[in-house]
Amino acid sequence: MNTIIRHLDDFRWDGVPVLNYKEDGTHFKAISRQVLFAGGPKLGAELRYFEIEPGGHSTLERHDHIHSVMVIRGGGHCLVGDAIHPLGPNDLVYVPSLTWHQFRATGDQPLGFLCLVNVDRDRPERPDDQAVAQLKALPQVGEFIRL
Amino acid sequence: MNTIIRHLDDFRWDGVPVLNYKEDGTHFKAISRQVLFAGGPKLGAELRYFEIEPGGHSTLERHDHIHSVMVIRGGGHCLVGDAIHPLGPNDLVYVPSLTWHQFRATGDQPLGFLCLVNVDRDRPERPDDQAVAQLKALPQVGEFIRL
Repeated sequence: MNTIIRHLDDFRWDGVPVLNYKEDGTHFKAISRQVLFAGGPKLGAELRYFEIEPGGHSTLERHDHIHSVMVIRGGGHCLVGDAIHPLGPNDLVYVPSLTWHQFRATGDQPLGFLCLVNVDRDRPERPDDQAVAQLKALPQVGEFIRL
Repeated sequence: MNTIIRHLDDFRWDGVPVLNYKEDGTHFKAISRQVLFAGGPKLGAELRYFEIEPGGHSTLERHDHIHSVMVIRGGGHCLVGDAIHPLGPNDLVYVPSLTWHQFRATGDQPLGFLCLVNVDRDRPERPDDQAVAQLKALPQVGEFIRL
């Protein structure tokens, strides 16, 4: 890859394509993905930038691999496990293994965040009916989640 | 670790200690380190935030492991290989294996950047007299480097 990748403006980078959030799937809304560092064995991890437009959200899911997240634009909220957290610039979010999580741009600004993951990772799992019922029974979580 | 680590202000995070740049060594100036995500086998990589005060610099060094860097505060310049590059907010820097590199806060503002590395990595090597002579012979690089 190039030595320097210039930030152009507005959280876009020279030569870095703005991709669909996922290759397939429909359980998300108004979210894009840019791969900033593709990783590989020498790095061990991959760094992506996700941006959710106001009103949008990531997929409600869980997986064995962990997420290490840093907000770099705007704000919003996230569900991690059984709690909702407000998010602002430079806040860090740690999503442990097998923990339900969802990010939402709840206000009038986008929510842009870096997300660091292992290059070797399992596929996410979406909640089944029983898991949805359990999440909906939790205070605040029931109203927060988008399916 | 905690689910949320709040950004306090001024690129400091709640409960994240501001550390010496290195455990030992003297070939750097006015630079601090904060470990934002310590990594471990499930993540594969570690995310650190380095901040160089105006006039300061990182160690001129190289190593087998690669650096993936994102500037998030201020600006400055870096040497990667045989070229000097200006740096501004959100610019990305890829430092390949065994490539001489040094970061400097060359202006009147700090240079703050995220640096992503493999959890398993080799120790950096400093240039010997021959390598210093080769670097000093390069246009611009000779005046840029700090030993």
